[in-house]
Amino acid sequence: MALQVSPLAPESYPDLPVIAGVRFATAAAGIKYKNRTDVLLAVFDEGTSVAGVLTRSKCSSAAVDWCKANLGGGVARALVVNSGNANAFTGRKGQQSVEQTAAIAAKAVGCSVAEIFLASTGVIGEPLDANKFSGVLDTMAAALSDQPWMEPAKAIMTTDTFPKLGTASIDIDGVEVRINGIAKGSGMIAPDMATMLSFVFTDMPIKAEVLQALLGQHVKSSFNAITVDSDTSTSDTLLAFATGKAKGIEPIETLDDPRAEIFGEALRDVLFDLAIQVVRDGEGATKQVAVHVEGATSDESAFRIAKSIADSPLVKTAIAGEDANWGRVVMAVGKAGEPADRDRLSIRFGDLVVAHNGERAAGYDEAATSAYMKGDELELTASLGLGEGRATVYTCDLTHGYIAINGDYRS
Amino acid sequence: MALQVSPLAPESYPDLPVIAGVRFATAAAGIKYKNRTDVLLAVFDEGTSVAGVLTRSKCSSAAVDWCKANLGGGVARALVVNSGNANAFTGRKGQQSVEQTAAIAAKAVGCSVAEIFLASTGVIGEPLDANKFSGVLDTMAAALSDQPWMEPAKAIMTTDTFPKLGTASIDIDGVEVRINGIAKGSGMIAPDMATMLSFVFTDMPIKAEVLQALLGQHVKSSFNAITVDSDTSTSDTLLAFATGKAKGIEPIETLDDPRAEIFGEALRDVLFDLAIQVVRDGEGATKQVAVHVEGATSDESAFRIAKSIADSPLVKTAIAGEDANWGRVVMAVGKAGEPADRDRLSIRFGDLVVAHNGERAAGYDEAATSAYMKGDELELTASLGLGEGRATVYTCDLTHGYIAINGDYRS
Repeated sequence: MALQVSPLAPESYPDLPVIAGVRFATAAAGIKYKNRTDVLLAVFDEGTSVAGVLTRSKCSSAAVDWCKANLGGGVARALVVNSGNANAFTGRKGQQSVEQTAAIAAKAVGCSVAEIFLASTGVIGEPLDANKFSGVLDTMAAALSDQPWMEPAKAIMTTDTFPKLGTASIDIDGVEVRINGIAKGSGMIAPDMATMLSFVFTDMPIKAEVLQALLGQHVKSSFNAITVDSDTSTSDTLLAFATGKAKGIEPIETLDDPRAEIFGEALRDVLFDLAIQVVRDGEGATKQVAVHVEGATSDESAFRIAKSIADSPLVKTAIAGEDANWGRVVMAVGKAGEPADRDRLSIRFGDLVVAHNGERAAGYDEAATSAYMKGDELELTASLGLGEGRATVYTCDLTHGYIAINGDYRS
Repeated sequence: MALQVSPLAPESYPDLPVIAGVRFATAAAGIKYKNRTDVLLAVFDEGTSVAGVLTRSKCSSAAVDWCKANLGGGVARALVVNSGNANAFTGRKGQQSVEQTAAIAAKAVGCSVAEIFLASTGVIGEPLDANKFSGVLDTMAAALSDQPWMEPAKAIMTTDTFPKLGTASIDIDGVEVRINGIAKGSGMIAPDMATMLSFVFTDMPIKAEVLQALLGQHVKSSFNAITVDSDTSTSDTLLAFATGKAKGIEPIETLDDPRAEIFGEALRDVLFDLAIQVVRDGEGATKQVAVHVEGATSDESAFRIAKSIADSPLVKTAIAGEDANWGRVVMAVGKAGEPADRDRLSIRFGDLVVAHNGERAAGYDEAATSAYMKGDELELTASLGLGEGRATVYTCDLTHGYIAINGDYRS
């Protein structure tokens, strides 16, 4: 099925700089389709530290299990990603497949299997034949390049309608440090620890433990704050690789190092940029929606209420219909199971107060609200009036496009 | 918007018998539309006991609050239901509206306001003008009838495409006891204690406390086991009225009375019948789906996993597309957050084993499975292999019809 490019696709793509110590290649290995780029090999110089957050699904894929086992080592030499087959729910065959893939990659790159990280995305339940990687990874390892980043971003796409790239650079100790990131994801998006697949690369010298702590912190307000369809993937994988090749900087060894916060903010910018791109490429999306909850009893409570609103099919179809149906927001607050007092609840669409203290706002302006709903970037705010807890969840609308993509898809 | 009748609508409707002690009338009060039946008044003889289960939404409607306050009394003389306006999130105005409506009804019927029960369904956030009931309820009270039950069933419909009626009769102490029920509901269906609206009437003599206990018990496997779109209503109301007019039966005074179980089973049959009709009239539904979970660590855990599968947009769109995409069932088990072991998980579509012990079943027959998916009543079973916990949740598929109904609906 040929998918129309999302109306929310970016008008242009950023030109990502070289990250010293990172080289890559892409290839068509015929995983599912012929003549379609479906494998990414990224190779890192020695001394690269790695951190990751992975799906909490009880049915995680074989590649996720592999990464979990190897993250403890904290060092990476290569990443192999394939699209077209998730290698999830493939039992012992799946485990053998990742072992064999890692062995082929380790031989091609010249490192130990524990330094290989793997990710797979695509159909669930179909055994992945690792033999498909066998000549391919050798050829790729002999043709590595540090540019252009558009290639790896495209190689990991499945139902995505546009490639997702993000970059940031910061000054640390007078040296320019770079962070590049790529992501894929469009449906089955309600990340519990990460999105479908995202990989971030930096030349910052930073200890794996510190990188892990920063990643865990900033995933909360980026990938873990988005939802397309409330369905959490078996394959969610976010990995960050730090080559340490930015010259003349002492490594960050602890979280107390004041540079950790500066680096963390830049990392967060890249993660957030990529996460929003995933929402903007949500299956069938025509509008991007930020759902803010404030005045909740805690931030966690605010997050669960925001998620309840952002996941509600009735809220999302109303947005698709450009209908200022704030009653459905009331419903979604009410069903969240979190502390809420109907008679203190107020709701805003953009800056327009539509409901106040438990009933329609006195100054409710239907024409202005309807006009606001025609925009393609909307902000809904539910103000609970109970405490200081706040959170934001990002989502998209629910349209005929989502049904067409997922009701016609053949496993 | 004229809605097409659900393809899952019944071919004929049951002919409900008279329930001694129950009379009713319907009328068009112009609540939202002109010339559309939108009010039901049911009047009960003195001595009628009442029980109810109401939404747990934190944003419950004014009518729900009214019923909660009056259920403690255990006696009912009248029920007033309107469609077209939910009187939810209407603040002090909503409360005044129910008080005024109850006063009008109490005067028309000749009872105290505490014996009046109210339910409203329709748009959220729009004040309900109780003056609309003022002449109407008097006229209705003067024109009560005990037949035909099709009229009250139709009066409470909103986006329903067919009226929902159920009946059962049982022999208690050699006497025929009757139970009739009606329900409405199509969207915003994920009842937490009851469905949108359902009313059950019986001539059984039974104490309110016992009726309440039986209702609470049997709602679990009926209304609380269905979901159309995971969105819980602000107005969910299930009320049961027992007139006690079945002649020559001693009242059931305690749950220990062996007749409580017999009566409870018949009550459950009516509740279940109505609940399934709500699923079969789910907005846009073309298929009815029973999701069974077995082998979970507890019944509660099994229920949460079954709900996760039944609420998954990706599972529901696959069913709409007649796609035997069991990988999405794996995903939904994995995201439920309940104990599950991927490598013990097996999945059946009907009697066809599609996945076994964590991978595609050895004897997986794609042609047979695809043929099975073309049916309009499907059974999916996830077998966890961990314990004895089991549960079933009933749902429908997610189609373009749902988007059309909810994306075009104007508040």
